Amino acid sequence: MSTRLYIQEVATRDGFQIESSFIPTEDKIALIDRLSETGLAKIEVTSFTSPKAIPNLRDAEDVMRGIRRVPGVEYTVLVPNVKGCERALACEVDEINLVMSASDTHGLANLRMTPEQSLEQFKSIIEVTRGTGVFVNASLSTAFGCPFEGVVAEDRVYTLIQRLLDIGVQGITLCDTTGMADPAQVGRLCAEARRRWPEAVFTAHFHNTRGMGLANALAALNAGIDRFDASLGGLGGCPYAPGASGNICTEDLVHMFQRMGLETGVDLDRLLAAATSLPALIGHDVPGSILKAGKADRRYPKPQWMHAQD
Amino acid sequence: MSTRLYIQEVATRDGFQIESSFIPTEDKIALIDRLSETGLAKIEVTSFTSPKAIPNLRDAEDVMRGIRRVPGVEYTVLVPNVKGCERALACEVDEINLVMSASDTHGLANLRMTPEQSLEQFKSIIEVTRGTGVFVNASLSTAFGCPFEGVVAEDRVYTLIQRLLDIGVQGITLCDTTGMADPAQVGRLCAEARRRWPEAVFTAHFHNTRGMGLANALAALNAGIDRFDASLGGLGGCPYAPGASGNICTEDLVHMFQRMGLETGVDLDRLLAAATSLPALIGHDVPGSILKAGKADRRYPKPQWMHAQD
Repeated sequence: MSTRLYIQEVATRDGFQIESSFIPTEDKIALIDRLSETGLAKIEVTSFTSPKAIPNLRDAEDVMRGIRRVPGVEYTVLVPNVKGCERALACEVDEINLVMSASDTHGLANLRMTPEQSLEQFKSIIEVTRGTGVFVNASLSTAFGCPFEGVVAEDRVYTLIQRLLDIGVQGITLCDTTGMADPAQVGRLCAEARRRWPEAVFTAHFHNTRGMGLANALAALNAGIDRFDASLGGLGGCPYAPGASGNICTEDLVHMFQRMGLETGVDLDRLLAAATSLPALIGHDVPGSILKAGKADRRYPKPQWMHAQD
Repeated sequence: MSTRLYIQEVATRDGFQIESSFIPTEDKIALIDRLSETGLAKIEVTSFTSPKAIPNLRDAEDVMRGIRRVPGVEYTVLVPNVKGCERALACEVDEINLVMSASDTHGLANLRMTPEQSLEQFKSIIEVTRGTGVFVNASLSTAFGCPFEGVVAEDRVYTLIQRLLDIGVQGITLCDTTGMADPAQVGRLCAEARRRWPEAVFTAHFHNTRGMGLANALAALNAGIDRFDASLGGLGGCPYAPGASGNICTEDLVHMFQRMGLETGVDLDRLLAAATSLPALIGHDVPGSILKAGKADRRYPKPQWMHAQD
């Protein structure tokens, strides 16, 4: 097991993109600046997609240029195509995150591309990054199951990982996009990926749609994964499961790892302070647990009648 | 790892006792009768406490005598004292469940007894069960932490387990009463308990207060625990953490284990049908995930525009 874990925040991209209302640019910047001071390893700042496709993130340039970049924190952005990549490079991002689906139907539904078409496009995008020093990550959606097709064969996932590495992708995020993964599957797939590609940089990305988010993170940890995507407050979600929880919650994940005695580099109190600001920012409650219940080291006063008997 | 897991339902006791309104006796009986047909190993039907202490369960005799008992399902009840035990035995329960706290302050706050006083009382209760064939289980509250005192030393837990076994307790439930446990601690404590007392019958009882409920169940499973308490819909709660989730949710737990390929004996669809009736029964929404999101094998229709292009 690694001695240090890397916590990667996705709320301002994976979370904000599906909010019903636009978060003002200055609020996004203020939140990211707070998050930069918490010890998170990486922040997925925004997405350089078409403003028509994702109106909530139409201020990608302004946000990326407006934030205060803290040394040691990597600032990554989602990039869907060559144009998005050129916009991202103009903002001097540390990393671009490409996204494709492991399943044909989800790829077509979500990106209007099959996995084959995504891989072809990735080659053009990677060409644009050559010589820039920007890290290229690819997120493999539905790696643990597709909401349309069901099971995604593990061999298909391994084949896609190999092809991504072959075309120059440096990091790969295994995404449980709609919360279908279970811990046995996660353990199996993550261990095998680590065994086959010990030098590759893998991230695990889980949703808590079916309550298994932290159990899956634990299974990935036990399989040697040391990088985890998570979303402040548990923002994000699944468009196919209304009312279901979103991404695993950053403060809940950090809290669990800290209680387990693991090093995340994150100052949980600062992270919680940032999370506390979310409901006012987005106009609704968030699914995270620690915000409601407090940390496990929280002490409660004895009942009044016990004091009376002291 | 065991080939079969035992799922033990606690909603009608641990859940109903803290509901703000009384659930009508016939509704309790109807729910338990439905649960008896799902393949659950055990049902904690009610509590033979004073009606003044827990008014919601003042119908303990009527419920226990009113249910249809299905062979293969064990019917257990919580028993706080000799009088409760005599009432339970008169209803021909299969098991009595004693409860004590591992921490002095929680014991005094919750039961008005220190662990020492609880153990003394247990002796008198066990005396009453002699020759009846009734199984004696003891639930050890705050085994993973106390909301007043904080850390509960693991050696203290082991000492209490030994003393419970010495006085004739046959099964021991390790309870994370207020959701303080983390998976590393759970794995350590459960593995050590199994190592020291390989013949004892251990149950793990977790709350999802801080989002770690299923991760803790996974850790207990990996440490060789095969019996799990859980509550339909995730009912129950923690009086010290308003708004926090309750017990781990039975249908979420069964769903996770089934997805992992483990045998629980439970018919998940029947269990979900029973869980669906809860909100109307108790007058509010429940925290469980699968009720909202559906099982992971749920398939979604392709978006309309994709059909248009077919």
